[in-house]
Amino acid sequence: MLSRPGLLQTLRRTFASTSTSTASSPSLIASLKQISPALLDQNPYELDRHGRGESFHPSLPPDAICHPRSAEEVKQIVKLCASTGTALVPFGAGTSLEGHVGNASPHITISTTKHFNKLVSVDPASLQCTVQPGITRHQLNHELRDTGLQFMVDPGADASIGGMAATNASGTSAVKFGVMRDNVLQVKVVTASGEEVTAGSRTFKNSAGYDLKNLFVGSEGTLGIITELTLRLHPIVDNIVSSVCAFENLTQACDAVVMLLSCGVPVAKCEVLDGPAIHAFNIFSKDVADMTPQPHLFVELQDISDGGLLSQQEMVEEILRDCGGSGIEFSADPAVRKKLWAARHATYYASCALRPGEGKGIVTDACVPLGKLASVIAATAKDVEESGVVGPVFGHAGDGNFHCILPVRDTDSDEYLKKLEDVNDRLISRTLAAGGTCTGEHGVGSGKAKYLDQQYGEGAVEIMRTIKKSMDPQNIFNPGKIIPNSEG
Amino acid sequence: MLSRPGLLQTLRRTFASTSTSTASSPSLIASLKQISPALLDQNPYELDRHGRGESFHPSLPPDAICHPRSAEEVKQIVKLCASTGTALVPFGAGTSLEGHVGNASPHITISTTKHFNKLVSVDPASLQCTVQPGITRHQLNHELRDTGLQFMVDPGADASIGGMAATNASGTSAVKFGVMRDNVLQVKVVTASGEEVTAGSRTFKNSAGYDLKNLFVGSEGTLGIITELTLRLHPIVDNIVSSVCAFENLTQACDAVVMLLSCGVPVAKCEVLDGPAIHAFNIFSKDVADMTPQPHLFVELQDISDGGLLSQQEMVEEILRDCGGSGIEFSADPAVRKKLWAARHATYYASCALRPGEGKGIVTDACVPLGKLASVIAATAKDVEESGVVGPVFGHAGDGNFHCILPVRDTDSDEYLKKLEDVNDRLISRTLAAGGTCTGEHGVGSGKAKYLDQQYGEGAVEIMRTIKKSMDPQNIFNPGKIIPNSEG
Repeated sequence: MLSRPGLLQTLRRTFASTSTSTASSPSLIASLKQISPALLDQNPYELDRHGRGESFHPSLPPDAICHPRSAEEVKQIVKLCASTGTALVPFGAGTSLEGHVGNASPHITISTTKHFNKLVSVDPASLQCTVQPGITRHQLNHELRDTGLQFMVDPGADASIGGMAATNASGTSAVKFGVMRDNVLQVKVVTASGEEVTAGSRTFKNSAGYDLKNLFVGSEGTLGIITELTLRLHPIVDNIVSSVCAFENLTQACDAVVMLLSCGVPVAKCEVLDGPAIHAFNIFSKDVADMTPQPHLFVELQDISDGGLLSQQEMVEEILRDCGGSGIEFSADPAVRKKLWAARHATYYASCALRPGEGKGIVTDACVPLGKLASVIAATAKDVEESGVVGPVFGHAGDGNFHCILPVRDTDSDEYLKKLEDVNDRLISRTLAAGGTCTGEHGVGSGKAKYLDQQYGEGAVEIMRTIKKSMDPQNIFNPGKIIPNSEG
Repeated sequence: MLSRPGLLQTLRRTFASTSTSTASSPSLIASLKQISPALLDQNPYELDRHGRGESFHPSLPPDAICHPRSAEEVKQIVKLCASTGTALVPFGAGTSLEGHVGNASPHITISTTKHFNKLVSVDPASLQCTVQPGITRHQLNHELRDTGLQFMVDPGADASIGGMAATNASGTSAVKFGVMRDNVLQVKVVTASGEEVTAGSRTFKNSAGYDLKNLFVGSEGTLGIITELTLRLHPIVDNIVSSVCAFENLTQACDAVVMLLSCGVPVAKCEVLDGPAIHAFNIFSKDVADMTPQPHLFVELQDISDGGLLSQQEMVEEILRDCGGSGIEFSADPAVRKKLWAARHATYYASCALRPGEGKGIVTDACVPLGKLASVIAATAKDVEESGVVGPVFGHAGDGNFHCILPVRDTDSDEYLKKLEDVNDRLISRTLAAGGTCTGEHGVGSGKAKYLDQQYGEGAVEIMRTIKKSMDPQNIFNPGKIIPNSEG
């Protein structure tokens, strides 16, 4: 009955019992144990957990999990897997939203958050630090708290820095502080030969040769295993205000964003939420505000001085009002701001909770040229409403990046799932027609691979395939991810 | 007598008569003429000019110059060259400082500034525009003048946007607005197959697959010919002040830069000049100021409001004073600022003019982690002084990037040239030992290729070589550049 089986079949698989692991060579497992007895994990719960992220993609568990403590151990693991042609998948905090972790091939997972999660060094005068890949962003900022510096990239989840680099993640701070590619200065990576290479440099600028650093950042574990990252840090600024502002429609809200950026307002965060998203948000943030369920902008401003902050605030208020904003409220209270952004970060979970029952969310991740945001986001919200599905829309308006969360339940009918699939397909088509990308911050994984040809054309995808083949000729690193038909 | 012949031999070649072109296949030339009679140029003056940039590297002229008008014509040229195995070198405004243009192999040059230099479109609401590669940065900003937007990357020369992308160029604005990789959203490139591919997207964020955009940006014509670029633009801000401030020594000046950035001051420009550079600067800027020849910082601030600007100015003044700065002067007069930065941009030429006679400059381009800038720049200035050579030191302090200009003359003795070579070698060693890069913004070309192994280690360079081979198997695109021993 359904012409496009992809997403629907995937969803059905998600709710089926998870696949059992296909045994990798017993001698490989024995050899991995040799590296260190504490290194290997075959606990069934952990195998299942390491086979999936947080979205609808089904668990594809590994045969075994390795918890290395050093680059030296990663090198040994890679060499062992290379010698047996066994696939290897890196795993951080398990917060992937596009089926990056787990693999349809029999594979070993390298899990980083248990033992490979240290802050290696901080160089405050150079505004940077060096970390192992398994450290999470909250853990990192906690450890940095006495330096006056912080790491700015903030996806919703408490992801690992290695995982964030692998997907070129970002979040609400990207509009001012950039994405992972802007904040990772250097990476060390164990490549297919089992050697560790250094890409990038510990400088803010670098024109020395091909940009291998940015090739590894965003490569989703398909070109090697990241073993160390040097990160750009930013000073903690105390003068901050957050504002919320309602609009009659999404077009007005997005036009206000264009106006803010065109006037050069250095917004620190700039988030849009549609009516249904505000409804979901309200449920998770009763102690922050009870907002009318209509489109809102959340704008955060920061400045080194009170005077500068006040000037920004005045200009923002004027722009928001000129663009039709109402009920504008500013708050400088750190407690209020903290709750506001905690609730905003939880919008994915809040959106999933709009539909009761056991389930997950399809998380779209469209990003369009800023001037196209109003039309694309408004058309998406309208499509969701007319299709009769639940799908709050919200996102990083200053970047032209938004998410439409489509919660799925194990009890959903084929008809409902087909509606979700169609909404998703039309969203991607609309995004690409506007010159956008199918993923602004989540990565391709197994979920978006089918759109790459459409987005870039065959030529660019063929170059990606060429690079993958030349750097991983055995196809051991997270096979089948990113590049359409690159598996096997 | 000299143990390391590299630089010295290169310098001697610079002052010898330029090599004559080795004839490419006459049938190739005839075929190129077929594409368009107006396309081909074999004027000897132009051949020589297209064989060199602005620094000491000798001219290695092409057999013929093509002036394409479209991507379609570039595709035809690439296919013709591929079919005959002829090398191809792209050429913009000829302002390269590291021997990117010209080639030791017989080659055809694709020259872009004559006919392939249009502003294709502007999308103000998306803060971006699309250009052909031959447009120069001044030409672009002139054409954008009515949009309220500007392109921010500003190397000293009026370089072509294609050339700036090829070397990942930057300039005085990088500290706030980033380098070419931050400001090029999307490129179209004709690759070895003769087809045009699209890399990157017209969005501010993109996590879809390998970062081919940043692979092409900085690839110096070795992976294909750039045919179109989509650029991020920024609003023109009117509230600007520039300041100059003297210091007793370079360490104090660099410490002040660390303090400015650690306090979160959003400096728009932040340049350091040592005493000799100020001397050179004075000669070129008599109508701006006559500064005492001691280390100076030039800091520019901008803000959307007068109030914000004043707050920044007060904080900057306090920090500069705390760090030992004296004679601090702020100026909001646009005419004064324009002259100040025009003179700063001319420091390369001013430095070369410190030594009379026919000649060029060796332009070093060290970039180090910010906290290492004070020690590396001070040691360099000391080394120059103790070696008895002329070598003003100045640069983009906020990025940890500085240049030591070593003017060379055709009348220079072997002994003097050897001193320059030694100063240069020690500078690179000092930079790499501090975790820096041999080039922050000029690129590798033929001048820095020998340092890549030392900077990255063999592993990363081998990956660059693998990528080059996989994307340009015939080695037709600017052979021998960037990667050590990749030629032939």
